[in-house]
Amino acid sequence: MAGLPYQALPGFRDFTPDECAVRNYLFEVWRGVARRFGFIEYETPVLEDTGLYLKKSGGELSSQLFRFEDQGGRDVTLRPEVTASLARLVAQHQRNFPKPLKWFEVGACFRYEKPQKGRGREFHQFNVDILGEAGIAADAELISLAIETMLSFGFEKEDFQVRISDRMAWLDFAKKHDIPDESTAEFLSIVDKIDRDTPENLTKKLAVFSLTPDQVRAFMADHEHASTAYRAIAQDLSARGYDGCFELDLSIVRGLAYYTGIVFEVFDRKKSMRAVAGGGRYDTLIHTISDGAVDLPATGFAMGDYVIRNLIEETPHAAILMKAWLMRNSAACDLYLVVADDAKRTEALRLLTDLRQAGIAADMGFSSAKVAKQFQAAERCGARFALVIGDEFPLLSLKVLASRTTENLSALDAVEWLKARLLEPDGPLLA
Amino acid sequence: MAGLPYQALPGFRDFTPDECAVRNYLFEVWRGVARRFGFIEYETPVLEDTGLYLKKSGGELSSQLFRFEDQGGRDVTLRPEVTASLARLVAQHQRNFPKPLKWFEVGACFRYEKPQKGRGREFHQFNVDILGEAGIAADAELISLAIETMLSFGFEKEDFQVRISDRMAWLDFAKKHDIPDESTAEFLSIVDKIDRDTPENLTKKLAVFSLTPDQVRAFMADHEHASTAYRAIAQDLSARGYDGCFELDLSIVRGLAYYTGIVFEVFDRKKSMRAVAGGGRYDTLIHTISDGAVDLPATGFAMGDYVIRNLIEETPHAAILMKAWLMRNSAACDLYLVVADDAKRTEALRLLTDLRQAGIAADMGFSSAKVAKQFQAAERCGARFALVIGDEFPLLSLKVLASRTTENLSALDAVEWLKARLLEPDGPLLA
Repeated sequence: MAGLPYQALPGFRDFTPDECAVRNYLFEVWRGVARRFGFIEYETPVLEDTGLYLKKSGGELSSQLFRFEDQGGRDVTLRPEVTASLARLVAQHQRNFPKPLKWFEVGACFRYEKPQKGRGREFHQFNVDILGEAGIAADAELISLAIETMLSFGFEKEDFQVRISDRMAWLDFAKKHDIPDESTAEFLSIVDKIDRDTPENLTKKLAVFSLTPDQVRAFMADHEHASTAYRAIAQDLSARGYDGCFELDLSIVRGLAYYTGIVFEVFDRKKSMRAVAGGGRYDTLIHTISDGAVDLPATGFAMGDYVIRNLIEETPHAAILMKAWLMRNSAACDLYLVVADDAKRTEALRLLTDLRQAGIAADMGFSSAKVAKQFQAAERCGARFALVIGDEFPLLSLKVLASRTTENLSALDAVEWLKARLLEPDGPLLA
Repeated sequence: MAGLPYQALPGFRDFTPDECAVRNYLFEVWRGVARRFGFIEYETPVLEDTGLYLKKSGGELSSQLFRFEDQGGRDVTLRPEVTASLARLVAQHQRNFPKPLKWFEVGACFRYEKPQKGRGREFHQFNVDILGEAGIAADAELISLAIETMLSFGFEKEDFQVRISDRMAWLDFAKKHDIPDESTAEFLSIVDKIDRDTPENLTKKLAVFSLTPDQVRAFMADHEHASTAYRAIAQDLSARGYDGCFELDLSIVRGLAYYTGIVFEVFDRKKSMRAVAGGGRYDTLIHTISDGAVDLPATGFAMGDYVIRNLIEETPHAAILMKAWLMRNSAACDLYLVVADDAKRTEALRLLTDLRQAGIAADMGFSSAKVAKQFQAAERCGARFALVIGDEFPLLSLKVLASRTTENLSALDAVEWLKARLLEPDGPLLA
């Protein structure tokens, strides 16, 4: 609305109830998949010591940080991602938990970027990590979880693809071509942008390492370079029935410096959008964050809420699933009390309380109104039933709003009667 | 752990899985009560334009703000509370929603205070508001919701008390004693601190208004001053069956300047802690926040997660309810696959996938281990069942871990067999 003095900040979202319901759908699918895979939930603060991010990423994220000095003079930052906090938390508390840890988190992150489609300054992220397991079975488990998340949103195998790569294959390549250790990060960042750079730029950058774009592209295209780790993961994923959901793609190296092994990204099949999810192995991060106090192999991935939502909305069979969920969950209440006789308002308030205490989502108007208006209010809030209380009290009548059928019942056993029909899955049906 | 370079910031909390489960319990009870009362969920950004808070509170909160300049030069603040954001959002979007709005929110807030028991720099808040209804029925509905929240946590009527007051009664008092309009806020803040001030200070402060502490205390003690609004609310709450849960307490005025009518706070009966929840009517705030563009009466309350948790833990019958919920929700998975023959690992991975796709929370180890070790892992993650896959495949055996009983089943119909027993409420039981 124009002319209002305050709006949400650029890149930040107001979740009105309809938008909040979409958010809740994403969260419920995320949590549901994680729990089916035996992961348990944790959460870290949204505000952290800035040093945590500078140390972790080698400063790569620093231009995008919501960073400030708090009233106590601390250099603090709204978290741009969760893995650094997780590493900090695990370094401190891991003794109390049997390994491996299978942990997940759902929460907000913040980056000062130019707001655009598929990217905001605030976004929600689903983080899933396995800590304390060095074997590739952990990476396969995570990739499986990423696949099942896509399937749970209603996507089919034809809609998406997990592209798997291995940083070790590139480190072998670098060693073979005499790239010095201290330049590996720079070389990987050239590979990361290989399809976005101009040919001239790319040629110039690779020339520093006495390499040509053709050499690098030939390595990427030749699947003989698939690492043993990739082959083992592919075998594991095949055993689970995921053939056709994944492939080797050595062009994936992931931007951040801390990845140490298998990395992967989930894309829509047309690759028309940014990655839906991405992650990989980071075996040295906890050691780095804890200044060497704790050493724990780790692997994980994150999925943001922006790209997945766009992809759901553009994929009819996923969109219909979301819409069905939203329909089922859109009602503000299940039963609306219609007060046909104002002299019975006291009795209505008591009945309303009893219904709510019995677990039934019930509501009624705040003031007296014509019966027809109250029925309108019942429909508007999505109620399935209207319970009419009038001058025949304690006799009540229940209207099933969809079928317009009516049943009579007594106020004396109304709560039990309704509980059996509304809350118990195998109770008597109402048409 | 000592010696680690990074910790959570002072006043911020790490939610390890056990702590996160407690948080989830509070959230689930809050959301459950709100939904039974016909409220729908919304969410606003945690970062807002600082002007929003300065305008709303008249600067009262400004010393406690996490306030900074973002990279675009904006004066921004981590929200210290949610009502200002709600007023902003409602001013912008209210046209799209039939009135009255019954909206709730669960989310994080931030205040730069000295961390202490019952108070952190980051906390979670349950916000419940009714907008577009000027009648006291809305206030009574909110107080009822506050009471039901306490009852849902397992508190009994003897454990807590809602103390209800009316700012209008104080404004009448102020007018009768010739306190000028522009000094009303100052006078109310003296009343707010009446029990915490020294007698000398209090006498001195009230003398400015030609009043004595005795005069003010006499007004507070004389329930004849109960407003018509309070009487109507008391009648409504009685009709609902809440006698004994509330009383008039004119010493409650609430700190913030924007309250316009009925205000209330929820206390433990011994009043041994800070208020568990508080709120009231704020009929002019949306008008103020929107520079007069939108005018909507409103009333609401908030409950933080610190005090309620302390109170639950110190009240045995509420604590046991929470513990029971935590027990029911603590298992990382329901069924653990024990691979007794490593040659069957491929078949185990496929079965694991099928079980998870059927909605069963299932897990297995990442690498081969002795059967006894795998059973230990099953117990550790809280599974009820261990499904053993070995050289008799496709014959499997299911162990009920609590009773140590065993049943045989075939891998061919294992998923259907287990679904009926694990997921369907009236399916065949397993001892």
